[in-house]
Amino acid sequence: MSEEVRYSPGRAVSEAQVPGWDDEADVVVVGFGAAGACAAIEARNAGADVIVLEVAGAGGGSAALSGGEVYVGGNGGTDVQREHGFSDSTDDLRRYLMMSGGPAADAERVDVYAENAVQHFNWLRSLGVPFKGTYLPGKWIEPPTDDTLLWSGNEKAWPWSAEAQPAPRGHTVQFTGWGGGQVLMKVLCDQAVALGAQLHCNSRALALVIGEHRRVVGVVARQDGQIRYLRARRGVILCAGGFICNADMVRRFVPSALDCQLPVTGGNDDGSGIRMGISVGAATLNMQEFFATLPFFPPASLVKGIFVNGHGQRFVNEDSYHGRVAHAVLRQPQGRAWLLVDNEIFGRPILQEDLEIAAVGESWEEVEQELGLPAGALVHAVEEFNRYAAAGEDPHFHKSEEWLRPLTEPPFAALSYCKGDFQAHAFTLGGLATKPTGEVLDADGEAITGLYAAGRTACGLPRWGEGYSSGLSLGDSTFFGRMAGRSAAALSS
Amino acid sequence: MSEEVRYSPGRAVSEAQVPGWDDEADVVVVGFGAAGACAAIEARNAGADVIVLEVAGAGGGSAALSGGEVYVGGNGGTDVQREHGFSDSTDDLRRYLMMSGGPAADAERVDVYAENAVQHFNWLRSLGVPFKGTYLPGKWIEPPTDDTLLWSGNEKAWPWSAEAQPAPRGHTVQFTGWGGGQVLMKVLCDQAVALGAQLHCNSRALALVIGEHRRVVGVVARQDGQIRYLRARRGVILCAGGFICNADMVRRFVPSALDCQLPVTGGNDDGSGIRMGISVGAATLNMQEFFATLPFFPPASLVKGIFVNGHGQRFVNEDSYHGRVAHAVLRQPQGRAWLLVDNEIFGRPILQEDLEIAAVGESWEEVEQELGLPAGALVHAVEEFNRYAAAGEDPHFHKSEEWLRPLTEPPFAALSYCKGDFQAHAFTLGGLATKPTGEVLDADGEAITGLYAAGRTACGLPRWGEGYSSGLSLGDSTFFGRMAGRSAAALSS
Repeated sequence: MSEEVRYSPGRAVSEAQVPGWDDEADVVVVGFGAAGACAAIEARNAGADVIVLEVAGAGGGSAALSGGEVYVGGNGGTDVQREHGFSDSTDDLRRYLMMSGGPAADAERVDVYAENAVQHFNWLRSLGVPFKGTYLPGKWIEPPTDDTLLWSGNEKAWPWSAEAQPAPRGHTVQFTGWGGGQVLMKVLCDQAVALGAQLHCNSRALALVIGEHRRVVGVVARQDGQIRYLRARRGVILCAGGFICNADMVRRFVPSALDCQLPVTGGNDDGSGIRMGISVGAATLNMQEFFATLPFFPPASLVKGIFVNGHGQRFVNEDSYHGRVAHAVLRQPQGRAWLLVDNEIFGRPILQEDLEIAAVGESWEEVEQELGLPAGALVHAVEEFNRYAAAGEDPHFHKSEEWLRPLTEPPFAALSYCKGDFQAHAFTLGGLATKPTGEVLDADGEAITGLYAAGRTACGLPRWGEGYSSGLSLGDSTFFGRMAGRSAAALSS
Repeated sequence: MSEEVRYSPGRAVSEAQVPGWDDEADVVVVGFGAAGACAAIEARNAGADVIVLEVAGAGGGSAALSGGEVYVGGNGGTDVQREHGFSDSTDDLRRYLMMSGGPAADAERVDVYAENAVQHFNWLRSLGVPFKGTYLPGKWIEPPTDDTLLWSGNEKAWPWSAEAQPAPRGHTVQFTGWGGGQVLMKVLCDQAVALGAQLHCNSRALALVIGEHRRVVGVVARQDGQIRYLRARRGVILCAGGFICNADMVRRFVPSALDCQLPVTGGNDDGSGIRMGISVGAATLNMQEFFATLPFFPPASLVKGIFVNGHGQRFVNEDSYHGRVAHAVLRQPQGRAWLLVDNEIFGRPILQEDLEIAAVGESWEEVEQELGLPAGALVHAVEEFNRYAAAGEDPHFHKSEEWLRPLTEPPFAALSYCKGDFQAHAFTLGGLATKPTGEVLDADGEAITGLYAAGRTACGLPRWGEGYSSGLSLGDSTFFGRMAGRSAAALSS
């Protein structure tokens, strides 16, 4: 164990310090989740020999705990989209993804994804990932069926709906309820191993090894309690996940996520991949960004309610993706927000049954008073909403007509989304700066030879909490994991 | 020039690649602005020999273009504060600074500053920095006089005012109008040189040199067109400013600042110091944060106006520090915001005389209509504000009574602070992760031996745009520049 103290992801090891290589391969992949499995598959397909290091006892990573949803479309639509009457142009997908990337959206990455996402979906099917091919209409957080095609983001919500023709793009692996991620990862991991990737589980990558001219040449790992030095003749691909499990990193880099008590992770998102990249001079991007959600519906009727803050102000179209609503709630002044509902739409949020009902009243004046808000503020917000909703309009937030209905049936209630009264889920979106090829970039924007990253270790397509859509992380991880695998395999040794 | 191509701040040079040292010193300081000058002074005071590399033709950096304001207090108050009747406890300063640091506030850094700021102010005076010692009441952006003591932040504005006893803490160098920074920097630079720091102007640091065990051992620089290798026996201190001049870095790391057209800089904030730190494995913090301001007053009467967004919602107490108001304006939906004023308080903003008046009317209904806002929204906001203001209250935003007055004297007007209609000033607040000692930290939070940073190259006290106060950057740069100088001088070679 004393050797382990010497090695840490934040500190690279120079080749001169390596006592001798214990093993070697063209490509060493760190992490056997969605990105790592796809990287290994493509590196093997390109003829490289591949070692995969996985810290857990088996592959799968955080992707195996996901719903197994992949965000794809464009090029006229996938077979599934077209079969259910949704055409989906590459340009619409591109515009949607650029908006979803927020201020730091990466046009180059979006372009290559939008142009090739359909092909990527077909590739997943060709490996045997099962997609039932059916369509589930409606608004869901966790699809209760084994259907494939879902509305999984902000497509029909303003302002996305004004900029890009909406289409459902969530393509879910066939599995009844939550758990498609397991099915997906079994196929991908099995495929990588079948193609000859050498998998080492219970193997923790401790540090990168750096050779002459700043080329990454290997990895120091602990395998079965032993320190081992693994040479990568071509490249190392970091696919070690994000950093939501690392409390110290969360506190330093994304302190706003401390308000979210429920990490979305397979348990090994400890930031070691990102730290290894930083150790050799990689730049990081959007380290402050995170996915967050609060399942304020189902029942879907609750989407017809309105969120207000402590000033009695509305602040979001409630039919936005639940993660966008979550970010809007989290940033309200003094962490105060409530979902206002009337008797007709009321139901306890199924996924948060013990959510506090902060006020109930026969009039909105009573609710306002019970919440302790300044006289008139909340009443005005509801009256204004009701007046426009009755006419099928929401001039301020452009909530779609489908969810517009005046809140006029007493009793009325305010469900508390004040800080401390609800629990939010989170994972990190910041990571290493990379090209779409997976090449890791330094602070000047130049590639660090021999180093690649994909999945949540990189700052990928999903990089802005307010713009996340379900399926975006899996889509990004599998697609850009493949690209990184091909790139590393093609690098001359 | 061909050699220059080989060297870049994002890529460290290994000691083995150095053909020979052209010069050496115990401590090499990169950048001769506020942080660099103070680092050089203290390193010399500690007996180290010091080389300073300055890219410009003379010292001063961006600090020389500043107003020369230093944010200090605590410990019962500076002489100046006490003379004018303001006691100021260390605890109040600490609480103020913790709030000002936002979600990622650094308690250790705040503590050491709050405890020693008075002493630091006395040190500046002992060097001959002139502070007149007089007090200028009122609310200013650019003090028009040569007085010393000013209210320069959010001290009297909610929520700071509710958490910490307010005191004016902006201590401005004696100079009539804008320009105290020149005076300050002349004293500091002269002092460093008088103490024997060897100053090399027109010298660009190109890359760090890294030796065994990841110790930073020198700098590659271009001096008079020649590449020179400078050995640092003890340490290198990066004081090369922020990155607001580097359009590519702004786009990658702080894209939201692209909305601000006016960089606040001496011209060399090119991010090279931050990039050099990243090149040897340093972590960065808060790279997305920036100072921004829009001078919506004077005349101070405009502070009595109210800002509303496109939903007709107020969103900030207008008596907050102008930089806080700027950030609030910049993040409004669709970049739409207006300052509403009535005839009694109207005046053209002196610093933005050509600001667009978007609407004028004899009633608020007319103004609302002219702005094209949904009926009732703006009128309600004004009516609600007026009703409470008449009673001396602002239950929502807690604007202080001093600035509360109903807007009831027609004609009424809306000054446009919509995106594109005004220009905002900005500089970057993100930078290298450091300890208060100036030691630069890697991704694991461990110090990189031989490397220090201060000023805007580091992520310092000012690290949250919404919490900035005038004088915070100079206070931080001079104080922590000194600490870095002492730390580097004390490192064993």
